[in-house]
Amino acid sequence: MRIRIINANTSTAMTDKMGVAALNVARPGTEIIAVNPASGPLTIESHFDETVAAVGVCEEIRAGEAAGTNAYVIACFGDPGLYAARELTLAPVIGIAEAAFHVASLIATRFSVVTTLGRTGIMAERLLHEYGMGIRCRKVRAAEIPVLALEHEADTAYRLIEAECIRARDEDNIGAIVLGCGGMADLAARLTARIGLPVVEGVAAAVALAESLVTLKLQTSKFGDLAAPPAKPFTGEFARYSC
Amino acid sequence: MRIRIINANTSTAMTDKMGVAALNVARPGTEIIAVNPASGPLTIESHFDETVAAVGVCEEIRAGEAAGTNAYVIACFGDPGLYAARELTLAPVIGIAEAAFHVASLIATRFSVVTTLGRTGIMAERLLHEYGMGIRCRKVRAAEIPVLALEHEADTAYRLIEAECIRARDEDNIGAIVLGCGGMADLAARLTARIGLPVVEGVAAAVALAESLVTLKLQTSKFGDLAAPPAKPFTGEFARYSC
Amino acid sequence: MRIRIINANTSTAMTDKMGVAALNVARPGTEIIAVNPASGPLTIESHFDETVAAVGVCEEIRAGEAAGTNAYVIACFGDPGLYAARELTLAPVIGIAEAAFHVASLIATRFSVVTTLGRTGIMAERLLHEYGMGIRCRKVRAAEIPVLALEHEADTAYRLIEAECIRARDEDNIGAIVLGCGGMADLAARLTARIGLPVVEGVAAAVALAESLVTLKLQTSKFGDLAAPPAKPFTGEFARYSC
Amino acid sequence: MRIRIINANTSTAMTDKMGVAALNVARPGTEIIAVNPASGPLTIESHFDETVAAVGVCEEIRAGEAAGTNAYVIACFGDPGLYAARELTLAPVIGIAEAAFHVASLIATRFSVVTTLGRTGIMAERLLHEYGMGIRCRKVRAAEIPVLALEHEADTAYRLIEAECIRARDEDNIGAIVLGCGGMADLAARLTARIGLPVVEGVAAAVALAESLVTLKLQTSKFGDLAAPPAKPFTGEFARYSC
Amino acid sequence: MRIRIINANTSTAMTDKMGVAALNVARPGTEIIAVNPASGPLTIESHFDETVAAVGVCEEIRAGEAAGTNAYVIACFGDPGLYAARELTLAPVIGIAEAAFHVASLIATRFSVVTTLGRTGIMAERLLHEYGMGIRCRKVRAAEIPVLALEHEADTAYRLIEAECIRARDEDNIGAIVLGCGGMADLAARLTARIGLPVVEGVAAAVALAESLVTLKLQTSKFGDLAAPPAKPFTGEFARYSC
Amino acid sequence: MRIRIINANTSTAMTDKMGVAALNVARPGTEIIAVNPASGPLTIESHFDETVAAVGVCEEIRAGEAAGTNAYVIACFGDPGLYAARELTLAPVIGIAEAAFHVASLIATRFSVVTTLGRTGIMAERLLHEYGMGIRCRKVRAAEIPVLALEHEADTAYRLIEAECIRARDEDNIGAIVLGCGGMADLAARLTARIGLPVVEGVAAAVALAESLVTLKLQTSKFGDLAAPPAKPFTGEFARYSC
Repeated sequence: MRIRIINANTSTAMTDKMGVAALNVARPGTEIIAVNPASGPLTIESHFDETVAAVGVCEEIRAGEAAGTNAYVIACFGDPGLYAARELTLAPVIGIAEAAFHVASLIATRFSVVTTLGRTGIMAERLLHEYGMGIRCRKVRAAEIPVLALEHEADTAYRLIEAECIRARDEDNIGAIVLGCGGMADLAARLTARIGLPVVEGVAAAVALAESLVTLKLQTSKFGDLAAPPAKPFTGEFARYSC
Repeated sequence: MRIRIINANTSTAMTDKMGVAALNVARPGTEIIAVNPASGPLTIESHFDETVAAVGVCEEIRAGEAAGTNAYVIACFGDPGLYAARELTLAPVIGIAEAAFHVASLIATRFSVVTTLGRTGIMAERLLHEYGMGIRCRKVRAAEIPVLALEHEADTAYRLIEAECIRARDEDNIGAIVLGCGGMADLAARLTARIGLPVVEGVAAAVALAESLVTLKLQTSKFGDLAAPPAKPFTGEFARYSC
Repeated sequence: MRIRIINANTSTAMTDKMGVAALNVARPGTEIIAVNPASGPLTIESHFDETVAAVGVCEEIRAGEAAGTNAYVIACFGDPGLYAARELTLAPVIGIAEAAFHVASLIATRFSVVTTLGRTGIMAERLLHEYGMGIRCRKVRAAEIPVLALEHEADTAYRLIEAECIRARDEDNIGAIVLGCGGMADLAARLTARIGLPVVEGVAAAVALAESLVTLKLQTSKFGDLAAPPAKPFTGEFARYSC
Repeated sequence: MRIRIINANTSTAMTDKMGVAALNVARPGTEIIAVNPASGPLTIESHFDETVAAVGVCEEIRAGEAAGTNAYVIACFGDPGLYAARELTLAPVIGIAEAAFHVASLIATRFSVVTTLGRTGIMAERLLHEYGMGIRCRKVRAAEIPVLALEHEADTAYRLIEAECIRARDEDNIGAIVLGCGGMADLAARLTARIGLPVVEGVAAAVALAESLVTLKLQTSKFGDLAAPPAKPFTGEFARYSC
Repeated sequence: MRIRIINANTSTAMTDKMGVAALNVARPGTEIIAVNPASGPLTIESHFDETVAAVGVCEEIRAGEAAGTNAYVIACFGDPGLYAARELTLAPVIGIAEAAFHVASLIATRFSVVTTLGRTGIMAERLLHEYGMGIRCRKVRAAEIPVLALEHEADTAYRLIEAECIRARDEDNIGAIVLGCGGMADLAARLTARIGLPVVEGVAAAVALAESLVTLKLQTSKFGDLAAPPAKPFTGEFARYSC
Repeated sequence: MRIRIINANTSTAMTDKMGVAALNVARPGTEIIAVNPASGPLTIESHFDETVAAVGVCEEIRAGEAAGTNAYVIACFGDPGLYAARELTLAPVIGIAEAAFHVASLIATRFSVVTTLGRTGIMAERLLHEYGMGIRCRKVRAAEIPVLALEHEADTAYRLIEAECIRARDEDNIGAIVLGCGGMADLAARLTARIGLPVVEGVAAAVALAESLVTLKLQTSKFGDLAAPPAKPFTGEFARYSC
């Protein structure tokens, strides 16, 4: 099967990293196509970044439909454009935040989230509330590092994340940690080894769930709010969406 | 003060209608600027429509900032781009769904929502849950009319909405009805007269709340997730957002 | 329009202070009538105080109805008698706690409340739960000062409140602070300047919302539990309510 | 032990009925003192009635303290003045609504409430939400009879209540019914026999819980919001509360 | 009446202690039969222990039915087998955790739980959520002592529990403490004296509630999920349950 | 990898059916071992059945550990013994109810559950609440057929289930249906074809999730309440659990 990993930002280094993380867990027969939108923010650290990135995510769904795709992963911890993406395809679409929450809840009764910035932590809290996962999450913690530091100051970033994970382990009475940024896709194994607790990373989790849905022959429901969008005119730079 | 009413779709007829609804309730000294994005969907009936429209909303915030604006109203019942818009300005930004929910909860203990389509009804439920207003809302009802019917088949649309409002009044044990679509901005008075219950319409409610915040000298908080987005490069058609 | 600010306690100094706070934000054409019941507790710091004060609030609604009133504000952070007051009039009735919560949620994703006493903090938590605003509030904090200290030891009281606001700002990951006592109506501007965060004060917020509802021609619903109370005999000192 | 049953309205016929219901379940050594305030509404069917009645409840607590009382029951389904009453005494105070909810949840997983009027049904919903019992209650149903009909048109009232109980049994997938009015205190046995489901009546339930707390030597906590109200001046007709 | 106290573990010393605690609060005419299963874990400190113990609880219900029993108490803070036990009898069945939560909520607005181990604290959180009591509980605290230490190192255990109770009193803004282990049945009076706050112990609370239900003639509902289990074959060591 | 499907009841016909359902979705390299306890109820239709079955589930985990197992599925819709099972192994353990809920929430915003009996429907509601999935589920519906009818009156049972699924599709405004009984493992494909909506069946879903966790190298956390049970003596027929 072919899974399209959509890094929602335009950092190709991060796209590559996510592709590797996906390949590390993909089944033998799974083809991983890691992409990112041509247009959009270099990193996603705000609602505005997410809003713009969501359009890019939809573009990549459309490209994926044209290319033949069995499942999609939206590889940004805010799950930007998740419901819109689901409307655009019959194939399953998995966000890495929801994937990480679901998977963590299968191996631990309580988890904490460690993310980059306090402001994105609030965004993660909103997702937890929306998905009904708030009762599973003890605390959303921020290492207070910008996303790009994960690329350019990897050692410093790792140390800060590790320190926050240790605090989570020691203070939160939890069973697992969820990494709250797609850019941490390469850190889960190292952190698990260091921290002792299971550390759940969303890209890998989402790939596994996507494969599962394909195997189960379960497609995105076209009843209710996930049905294909009603055809209509779009204007201006979005005129290409008219139908 | 100057309030920018951002119709999130690109139907200028609807923009005009919303402008009238806003003017009807605006204070003497308030200047109403009703606009819509140059680019985007003609109506908003899906998550995808909302996702694209949210970018247009942000564009209109940027234009409003350049033009000098004291407060913004996002005039689409899904409140698309609400948090992103708030990041882009110190001025208050009010969504018409949240405005209608807040205002309805001040005059009635329970309300029902009457919207256009079943699928947008599910989107309204998500907002109710997110805003903590679920306990106030008995039922989200859909008249099952496309948004454009509000323009092109106004009589038929009105009759279907009225019928659904009557069912809400008679079956839901409620004190008020919230109209769940910006395109119904001209129907509140007529429905209130016909139904007997207070019928809350979001555009008018949002204008009043926006004026209130300006008078209270309360601006969008720049602490937490609504602070200005971190500057960063954007690529492609969104390169204009780089800074 | 004429708005009656009902200070629910019998401290005329506080009534005057609230009147000033209301006038500071009222529109040009708004007449502010600040009153307090003739009978009742000097301050409100307990459920018992609230219970007695609620009768006084209803008295003032009745007086307001006789005098002609367009909207009412119940100026005590426990919103005592809110639903009863709404039954007694078609005019909008706004409690300052609900007003502050609604307004704070329009400019910040998360807020904390700073109130006088730990015991009234628990009462504020109950309101947050009842209004569905619990998800917005990080923490209810008490400066542990009696309400009268706001009048008689104003400097000490201010310093304790300011200190608690600073702790809220620095520890709670919030965007705004809600002042949890009507007696703090004169502190919002000074605290906002000092703290940096938006500080929301309920009397001002309620006046603005009350004006909004009048402008919107929205009256308290007479369907459901807010309809006029069924006429019936009352005995003893409350025989005046018989009808 | 001596238990004071405070009928919160001023209908002495109802007070007598409640006294009988209490005696029917009281232990041999328990003395039942059924009282009602000298001042207040004849029945309680609105928030306003409750607000006035709450003062009468507090009066009866004060009288009970003077007379020596081991526990109190507030015998009105809205639990008016519950927290204020608890502040005024070390003795346990039990509301009949909370008593009925707690007891019903011990013998059935789900229950429905059958009350008099739709408007008081909304008030019962608020209590369910406040007490955390919403997940236990399927539906709040109203027989749409005024409270006095329970006295003056007892047969008609019984038939309407029975019919509503039967609908609850047949449609709600419940294990028990809670009677939502103190004036139904004499109907539980007859309804249980007729309906088959356990029918929980609050006066009896509250007496049993009150006896339990006395036996357990558990008194109302004086830590937190239930501590004695701070002493202070009261004015006007409430000057008697000054201290 | 005859109440069967079912200590869910097989420590007869604990059974005896619980019997004493029950007798201390039982009414004159109440016969207390304190038992424990013949088969099962010596203490209950894990989900597995609870799972095995639940079968023993059911055995003791069956034995109690044969012997004639008016009410049952499941004396383990996880309430193991509670719903199954209710299916097996018409008599009321009360778990000590639910009993303690209900009773504590009648004398205080907020409480904290002090239990033995962090892991059983998570189990208590689940019960609080299930019973709708989460809004009443500030914090679940663990003294981090194994259950057997309550027997074999009673002094050390007491000191650790007392210290945790003091922290709860001083830090949690609560009105009462719930002891989160049946093995603490002998500590409530001493702790209440020492701590000042009401300390609620579940065995005593459950006995009082059980007596109440019997007096109220309320039996476990046989409508819904608590009806007698459908007869069916059981195999192997459970073949004795076939019918 | 080797996955042990634990049918929690002792019907070998159902075990075989579940084994087939598991094999139908398992990956090429996955070995499916479908087992059921030697001791326990023939079907699971009550809390008591679940309580007894949970011990059998634990037995099968122990047997699985001895035999070498990579992941477990508890194949009964009540997820009996789920947390206890997780304590007994490092391998992932998935319940079919939680699996179905998680998977359904990835392809649809709202779902309904169709189960066998009204009484087990209440048990499903409790799981939905516990797992935080209540906001996703519109309605739990019962076809009112005993579990064994799925074996012995397959045609009748199918027709009743199909009819209930059609009602769910037509009345509930949902995107997917969850089958609420492990004994329906062979019906999902047929129902999906007939109903049009995605129909999610838990055994298949759980197998896919179990494979995912193994691939992700995520094991049941041994921090918190899922750590191995403390060693201790067991007595009587459970003495074999002593350690």
